Amino acid sequence: MVASKRYRFEEVKDFAVRYFSAMDVPEIDARIAADVLLSADLRGINSHGVIRLRSYYGDHLENRLINPHSPIRTLTETPSTLALDGGNGLGPVVAYRAMSRCIEMADETGLAVTTVRNSNHFGIAGYYAMMALPEDMIGISLTNSQPLVAPTFGLSRVIGTNPIAVAIPAGEEKSFVLDMATSIVPLGKISVYDKTDQPIPEGWAINKNGELTQDPSEMINGGALLPLGGSAVMRGYKGYGLSLLVDLLSGVLAGAAFGQKVGKPGKEGNADVGHFFAALKIENFRPVDYFKADMDEYIHTIKASPKLPGQEHIYIHGEKEEALTEKYLQEGLPLLDEIVSGLEKAGQQAGVDFDLKPID
Amino acid sequence: MVASKRYRFEEVKDFAVRYFSAMDVPEIDARIAADVLLSADLRGINSHGVIRLRSYYGDHLENRLINPHSPIRTLTETPSTLALDGGNGLGPVVAYRAMSRCIEMADETGLAVTTVRNSNHFGIAGYYAMMALPEDMIGISLTNSQPLVAPTFGLSRVIGTNPIAVAIPAGEEKSFVLDMATSIVPLGKISVYDKTDQPIPEGWAINKNGELTQDPSEMINGGALLPLGGSAVMRGYKGYGLSLLVDLLSGVLAGAAFGQKVGKPGKEGNADVGHFFAALKIENFRPVDYFKADMDEYIHTIKASPKLPGQEHIYIHGEKEEALTEKYLQEGLPLLDEIVSGLEKAGQQAGVDFDLKPID
Repeated sequence: MVASKRYRFEEVKDFAVRYFSAMDVPEIDARIAADVLLSADLRGINSHGVIRLRSYYGDHLENRLINPHSPIRTLTETPSTLALDGGNGLGPVVAYRAMSRCIEMADETGLAVTTVRNSNHFGIAGYYAMMALPEDMIGISLTNSQPLVAPTFGLSRVIGTNPIAVAIPAGEEKSFVLDMATSIVPLGKISVYDKTDQPIPEGWAINKNGELTQDPSEMINGGALLPLGGSAVMRGYKGYGLSLLVDLLSGVLAGAAFGQKVGKPGKEGNADVGHFFAALKIENFRPVDYFKADMDEYIHTIKASPKLPGQEHIYIHGEKEEALTEKYLQEGLPLLDEIVSGLEKAGQQAGVDFDLKPID
Repeated sequence: MVASKRYRFEEVKDFAVRYFSAMDVPEIDARIAADVLLSADLRGINSHGVIRLRSYYGDHLENRLINPHSPIRTLTETPSTLALDGGNGLGPVVAYRAMSRCIEMADETGLAVTTVRNSNHFGIAGYYAMMALPEDMIGISLTNSQPLVAPTFGLSRVIGTNPIAVAIPAGEEKSFVLDMATSIVPLGKISVYDKTDQPIPEGWAINKNGELTQDPSEMINGGALLPLGGSAVMRGYKGYGLSLLVDLLSGVLAGAAFGQKVGKPGKEGNADVGHFFAALKIENFRPVDYFKADMDEYIHTIKASPKLPGQEHIYIHGEKEEALTEKYLQEGLPLLDEIVSGLEKAGQQAGVDFDLKPID
């Protein structure tokens, strides 16, 4: 059994802020990065949360593989379009600033797109899409990622798990927040099965010979993930198409790395991850109140519709994550003992006091 | 066996133009509608082609369920955003004009979105996305459609097969054209199995009790299609999320019908279909030549990557359809005898000379 204890969210976040600061990240940026990271834990997406504080961010910062000052540079700019160079900075900081500017532009023009090249892993895509919600805008956030997915009829890792995130506000109901890898599952999910020695469901991945495998280690060691849909008969080429689309927008359009070059696996140089953000002001199309009333009605209708035998709920995207966030903010964030001891060790290495105490 | 003969594309198209004209559609609009319809046949998407000339468009025009004059009205407009009312007009005509204006706006501002309410079925979504290609723009085209898809854990038809189409130009290589229903397959595919008395692959659809069925008639009679991904374990809720997303943008944002209200199944009144179009000018983000060179490189890399045993090609989205188009333009468009006799009959009813002669 894996043991976990609950911690006060603000204390965990404060530790992450101090950790980033110790890594030469300016304090305001450290707060942004910590907020992005912790929001993943709050939403139950642990694979993208504090577990990466040391293993990804700390490691890259220590080895100067990421520039802690995130020197973002504007490449081209018009009132509604903006192309940025992320200066090989901290992904969450670069992405936060890029989406902030996108929202500012959309506030003026009704609609804006910002692309980013030369960035790094930015955490959960949904964070940036959700930044549009308080402004009564629709937010879109895409990023490419290291190659892990085989195209339909292909054998090798050619494309990333390239997520699509879109956030759309509702009225009384919770916002619609779609935040999905375009592969059936992301690598982190395979790792969980691998660590607990469990077989993965058939259809998620292939081994290095292109055969479907239920052994997670076969995927990890030279196999590949399959795109959403899976096999050709189940229309896996649609998932492959979505994955490619995300890379064409966030990699090729941004002038970042794309395909097998993203993250420079096994090579030196910047990861050159690319992002794509869009913001769209609802009132430019129809009155926000009407829009939100229709959102509520639609959500009600879906949730009230007949369910499969044995099922009690039909979920709207983002609903479960929002409920977890409320729960964790109130009751404390559950962290595995293994993760807490990792944070403790990271603190020692970085010279940051580790003072987290579990609740009760 | 189903017999087919080949016909000259321009002659079939000319017949469709004359047919629409006989239905009181202005000639310039008749040309647009015929071009959209025939482009589906050229791309091998027969379910959306001339087969619908009488069965959908002719029928609706005759019964005045569609306004043949497509009186489009602007609701709100800014330099980069436009909301239109399609006047219950002919879907392809309304959509063509909406995307044309979107491209014009994007040419000025770099980026534009047009929404449409009060429209009708517009044919293949890809047609409008592809209108952006000659302008070195990225085109996006979405539409909602009549409810046919069950949400994850749901039993009934709540959402449409709501397609996503995105077209992105390349250099020497063919453009990337993704044009996909967000269900595993569209209804037309089930109908093909039904007409030929063949079982559908397991996982595509459920019957009225929510059980997976391989009997196409069980889906057609009160069952539902499943979203891309299928079951929850294979992440069908992502396909459900994409389907919902398309409806939130093309239905709710446009102020059109959404969900179970689209197409007013079994009720009177306008179908009130909604569309969403976007155009994005590549040169606002980076030089077009560099962009296209990267597109070509990416496409080469994917196509040259190792293949599954027994597979010789990895396809890029739109590649097969483009090859079919070239072939059919050169060798003639194959039409089933059954479809040709349907067109002949439609011509007689509408008082339009039917003069199609097969090639050889």
